This record gives sequence, structure tokens and C-alpha cells, in this order.
Amino acid sequence: MEPILILGLTAGALTTFALLPQVIKTLKLKETKDISLLMYIILCTGIALWLIYGLFIEDIPVIAANTISLALSLTILFSKIRYG
Amino acid sequence: MEPILILGLTAGALTTFALLPQVIKTLKLKETKDISLLMYIILCTGIALWLIYGLFIEDIPVIAANTISLALSLTILFSKIRYG
Repeated sequence: MEPILILGLTAGALTTFALLPQVIKTLKLKETKDISLLMYIILCTGIALWLIYGLFIEDIPVIAANTISLALSLTILFSKIRYG
Repeated sequence: MEPILILGLTAGALTTFALLPQVIKTLKLKETKDISLLMYIILCTGIALWLIYGLFIEDIPVIAANTISLALSLTILFSKIRYG
């Protein structure tokens, strides 16, 4: 693998990983009272646009990181909508 | 401006904007007890790597979004180190 690709995938792994604690906490506690709905709507929209952008520029790290990040942030968003 | 560039910059604006409420709250309250130090170390490192990656692939949205995101997340990280 090319060094630049490894750099991009590492960057993506780290920023994606930053979403995990909130997902684990939300799925475990099933409580989302203190979570901002607006914030996750904005974040999910932004990540979805990054994914579309990544597909346009055909950039593997941008596509990979934002696919997983979108799944994680949508999990938090749907939990918020479900548990309120 | 090209439509793809506008798409990338919009994506970047949204995911960067998602950091703002925490920055405002932290600077206002000067309290960071409930913030995870490890999480912000990982996030700042990831964003810094995205910035370096963006410079390598010469992608304006990746560079712009991660420059501002890095400044915002470092503000939270340094506040955490200062206020504990």
C-alpha cells in the first residue's frame, strides 16, 4: 500500500474511532436526553456530503472513513429520535 | 466555483460546525471535567493527519475543513489540559 493511502486511512480510523464511545454509551444506556438532536442532524448531513464528495473525487480514505462514520453517527441520531 | 468544490466545502463546513457548541461551552464555563482527554487526543491526532493527507493530495475542502477543525479541537484539548 502507498504511504499516502496509509496516512489517509489512519486519519480516517482515528476520527471515526472518536465517535465510538458515544455509540457504545447510547446503545448500552438507551438514554439520549443530553444529546443534541440538531447537532447530530448537522453532523450526519456533513458526513453524508463528505461521502458523496469522496465518491466524486474517487478518494478511498474519504469514502471508507465517512461510510463507517455515517453508520455510527446515524446510529446515534436514530437512537435520539427513538429514545428522545 | 465548481459544483464538486462547493459540495466538499459544504461537507467541511457542516462537520466543522459540529465542533462549535463544545468549544463555546468550554470557553464559557471553563469546566472540562466531563470531557474525555483521550478522546480529544485521538480526535486532534486524526484531524492533524487528515490535514497532512489533504496537503499531500492537494484537496482544498479537506485542507480547509481540517485546518479549522484542528484549531477548534485543539482549543478543547488545551482547555482540558488547563482546567483538568
